[in-house]
Amino acid sequence: MANSKFEYVKNFEQPDKLLPNTWVVVRIDGRGFTKFSTKYGFEKPNDKRALDLMNAAARAVVSELPDITIAYGVSDEYSFVFHKTCALFERRSSKIVSTVVSTFSAYYVHYWSTYFPETPLSPPLPSFDGRAVCYPSVQNLRDYMSWRQADCHINNLYNTTFWALIQQGGIEALEAEKMLKGTLAADKNEILWSKFNINYNNESEIYKKGSVIFRDYELVQPGTHNTATEVDKQAQPIQQSKNQVDKERKLRGKAQIVVEHLDIIKDDFWDQRPWLLSNKPGKGKALKET
Amino acid sequence: MANSKFEYVKNFEQPDKLLPNTWVVVRIDGRGFTKFSTKYGFEKPNDKRALDLMNAAARAVVSELPDITIAYGVSDEYSFVFHKTCALFERRSSKIVSTVVSTFSAYYVHYWSTYFPETPLSPPLPSFDGRAVCYPSVQNLRDYMSWRQADCHINNLYNTTFWALIQQGGIEALEAEKMLKGTLAADKNEILWSKFNINYNNESEIYKKGSVIFRDYELVQPGTHNTATEVDKQAQPIQQSKNQVDKERKLRGKAQIVVEHLDIIKDDFWDQRPWLLSNKPGKGKALKET
Amino acid sequence: MANSKFEYVKNFEQPDKLLPNTWVVVRIDGRGFTKFSTKYGFEKPNDKRALDLMNAAARAVVSELPDITIAYGVSDEYSFVFHKTCALFERRSSKIVSTVVSTFSAYYVHYWSTYFPETPLSPPLPSFDGRAVCYPSVQNLRDYMSWRQADCHINNLYNTTFWALIQQGGIEALEAEKMLKGTLAADKNEILWSKFNINYNNESEIYKKGSVIFRDYELVQPGTHNTATEVDKQAQPIQQSKNQVDKERKLRGKAQIVVEHLDIIKDDFWDQRPWLLSNKPGKGKALKET
Amino acid sequence: MANSKFEYVKNFEQPDKLLPNTWVVVRIDGRGFTKFSTKYGFEKPNDKRALDLMNAAARAVVSELPDITIAYGVSDEYSFVFHKTCALFERRSSKIVSTVVSTFSAYYVHYWSTYFPETPLSPPLPSFDGRAVCYPSVQNLRDYMSWRQADCHINNLYNTTFWALIQQGGIEALEAEKMLKGTLAADKNEILWSKFNINYNNESEIYKKGSVIFRDYELVQPGTHNTATEVDKQAQPIQQSKNQVDKERKLRGKAQIVVEHLDIIKDDFWDQRPWLLSNKPGKGKALKET
Repeated sequence: MANSKFEYVKNFEQPDKLLPNTWVVVRIDGRGFTKFSTKYGFEKPNDKRALDLMNAAARAVVSELPDITIAYGVSDEYSFVFHKTCALFERRSSKIVSTVVSTFSAYYVHYWSTYFPETPLSPPLPSFDGRAVCYPSVQNLRDYMSWRQADCHINNLYNTTFWALIQQGGIEALEAEKMLKGTLAADKNEILWSKFNINYNNESEIYKKGSVIFRDYELVQPGTHNTATEVDKQAQPIQQSKNQVDKERKLRGKAQIVVEHLDIIKDDFWDQRPWLLSNKPGKGKALKET
Repeated sequence: MANSKFEYVKNFEQPDKLLPNTWVVVRIDGRGFTKFSTKYGFEKPNDKRALDLMNAAARAVVSELPDITIAYGVSDEYSFVFHKTCALFERRSSKIVSTVVSTFSAYYVHYWSTYFPETPLSPPLPSFDGRAVCYPSVQNLRDYMSWRQADCHINNLYNTTFWALIQQGGIEALEAEKMLKGTLAADKNEILWSKFNINYNNESEIYKKGSVIFRDYELVQPGTHNTATEVDKQAQPIQQSKNQVDKERKLRGKAQIVVEHLDIIKDDFWDQRPWLLSNKPGKGKALKET
Repeated sequence: MANSKFEYVKNFEQPDKLLPNTWVVVRIDGRGFTKFSTKYGFEKPNDKRALDLMNAAARAVVSELPDITIAYGVSDEYSFVFHKTCALFERRSSKIVSTVVSTFSAYYVHYWSTYFPETPLSPPLPSFDGRAVCYPSVQNLRDYMSWRQADCHINNLYNTTFWALIQQGGIEALEAEKMLKGTLAADKNEILWSKFNINYNNESEIYKKGSVIFRDYELVQPGTHNTATEVDKQAQPIQQSKNQVDKERKLRGKAQIVVEHLDIIKDDFWDQRPWLLSNKPGKGKALKET
Repeated sequence: MANSKFEYVKNFEQPDKLLPNTWVVVRIDGRGFTKFSTKYGFEKPNDKRALDLMNAAARAVVSELPDITIAYGVSDEYSFVFHKTCALFERRSSKIVSTVVSTFSAYYVHYWSTYFPETPLSPPLPSFDGRAVCYPSVQNLRDYMSWRQADCHINNLYNTTFWALIQQGGIEALEAEKMLKGTLAADKNEILWSKFNINYNNESEIYKKGSVIFRDYELVQPGTHNTATEVDKQAQPIQQSKNQVDKERKLRGKAQIVVEHLDIIKDDFWDQRPWLLSNKPGKGKALKET
């Protein structure tokens, strides 16, 4: 059986390499998670177990793909940032996106029973879709991250108020929606405080800020570096000796991958962690105690 | 906190709609499955449990995504064919690919314990990557399917002979490789027969032909239809009444999704099942006995 | 001076090959031709010299690029159809589009003085933009061509009536616009006939039908061929001997390239000229008398 | 005649917007210029008239498209740089490329008789193809420009030596080629000097450096600005008042567009002309004396 006469079909595959020297963000979203969260009785407005499961799956993705420099998650979405020098899969978009989505989905299902021990999964199973977007400059990347965290804040304040009105205020969903229409942040804070004695600032950080995942090293004094400028200037992957590459891979492998709930909009977060943008492993505390 | 000043980052997302009126094939491949199959002790040259697991996961994908008209799998890869009129996710490539890959991965992990009850999964978990390719004509699509099945045959004949030499012949892997270098199909058949008394034709169909998944209806007499020509002529999705759409969806939902090991290179397979190309549900036997 | 350290910039060029086995249509449009036509005093509603110039430039493009099987023009736009088997520039979109646009622009400027001998060109010069679109099936391609010719008819009927109202009816432009708003074809025919004694059917074919350019051979009896079906079935370029290729190139080179004003929506045009879709040179009359 | 049933074909057009916040370089190349230059008897190794014609056409392109911040040409190629904030044609690649190529071709043909008054053009006419490439950072852009100018130097030194050997040394082309194979720059300089008494440094700047076209303003003291860093940091188009936009457009319109032959690899060129990267019009001398 000659295979050769069919092989021409390989020519229909079209290349999809992402532009070099740009930050690649792969964002994944839960498919039909409104229905899914109802099926498994997720708590409203936030289900701690569901968020912890998202974080555990995302942490596994970051661990398996060392080209990811930082990840940020909120609700049923997660954004994974590949450093602009990343050459994984020759930067082929569908390979990168599908690998992230597949790895995430596998861990989500695998870890499900850890976080929801009493409600086993049954078909249709949870699934996620994803896409890759390129950002040319550090500022673009930071604005992307800020966009997601600002969104987290806006949605969480809304949801916290909405569900307080329903759960504690005994109001119908449609009525609550109408009450909140057109309100500003201050209005919602006021409703929470005056009606339910809730100080929004005291809500859990994981709900207010979302979750950020990265390799952890010793913090750096802000102002001593100008990483963003240096990184923007960099035009192509730095040529390193094989020794140097191996050494950095080892350092990165040893670094602890942490899940935090920090403000990633302000400069401090980035200034104190220059390795996130430079992709050069930091120092010290980061060594895993094994 | 104003979100608007960050929202410009949405403009960096680039559209990736697949060309209309073309067949979309999403092929997924296991990542690092050589290592993975060693870790879990897959039998050589074929592990029936591993193939059954692939088929179970693929069947779930076909069931959840009714736009898939046929799927074909071999080893750790699976190809899913979306009908050329498919409008799922507005034909956005990354949405389609990531959804297929995510759903497949979720079921693969979920069903693992059914097929490998004694060897629980542990990180790193199995994962898959994927890509979408467009084929303009029925002939292109059939040639793609033939390419994969011809590949299955070539690889399986090689692997069957290779592992017979090792497992039954007591030969080292490198030696076996050298012996097979440059041999034709007839040579391998001869080695199998003369040395090991194996008639390759008697090997299991699932190994020789791979697996094909589709909705099953009553077979049609070949020669009574000219589906390929009709389908190629069709320039755009047929406008149907809502009633008609609903009726077809219901019929399709009722159809039994079968996993078979048939020759999909010859015309017969396609001529007897005109619904695979026409996307119009067939008749009769297909009704699930529930 | 080492060039090598800069050469990495070549990696930023992204491939843009058009999907194989699809018809490629390059449509070009005059940039700012409303202003341009005023500057050079084009006659309204149609300027015969301007259309003849467009046709001369387009004919030169078809002559220089034998991969073009047919071209259709109306007003300041022209569509060039490359056969689905075309491998020109490895089907790189920007090469194909820019070559068509450049060649067309060069001839437009070069031939200007032939058609407008009394009004020499001066900066800003006329220019055109272009884009390539892929059509998978013959029906898609024919629908594209029909779309342009139907558009020609609609616009020309409108313009003919609009300018009759102004030029012969002494009505202001805004007033004429208002009068025509919401009118059907029949209404416009009626206005032309009752007010200006113009029978639209008697208008010049070039205005009513636009212009179609192709290599001319002996017409074929419709119904004796089923070219569209054959062509759709064709999955990849037919393998020809070098002799055969040379022979066909020679025949094609000898064929007369004609500019006609025919109905290309109905089947007859295509049925009588199977070579347009098959890309196989026809017979006979086509030989240039040199 | 209903147009609507054909209009679905518009959906086959695929978007091709260039990534925002990246520098867009459109490079055009003469098609078949070896043959073309022979046909019109271009002088070797450089034809001053041909280069002047290229520069005149390129200057017209820069003048008609104010989004172009700088252009660089050598031999039969020209690169046009659109500022990273450019929003022309919504950054649609084929519109941008085809417009540049069309405008250039039109002027090349139009100005031909000015530079070659004694050899009128005849078909086949000169034509150019083009492509657009995105560069994310200032350094990438400058490396691209350096790449082209380094290429100019390498080729011109080679050609100067090659043609000296032929024209003054009476050596055959093949022989000259063999002599130069594997030689370094120093070797070629030595051949020129020892055999032909040619000091390469004294060759015309236009041949050695190529041509650079830009809007000219008062030079700035290098070191007083850090434009590249500022520009890289910029994440999106600066919001300007309509007044400000109009004012800048006016200033830009008044600026003299110059054709120079300068070193664009070293920093000085860019440091003294911050407006090239910042896109903010400079001061003073630039005003056209009209």
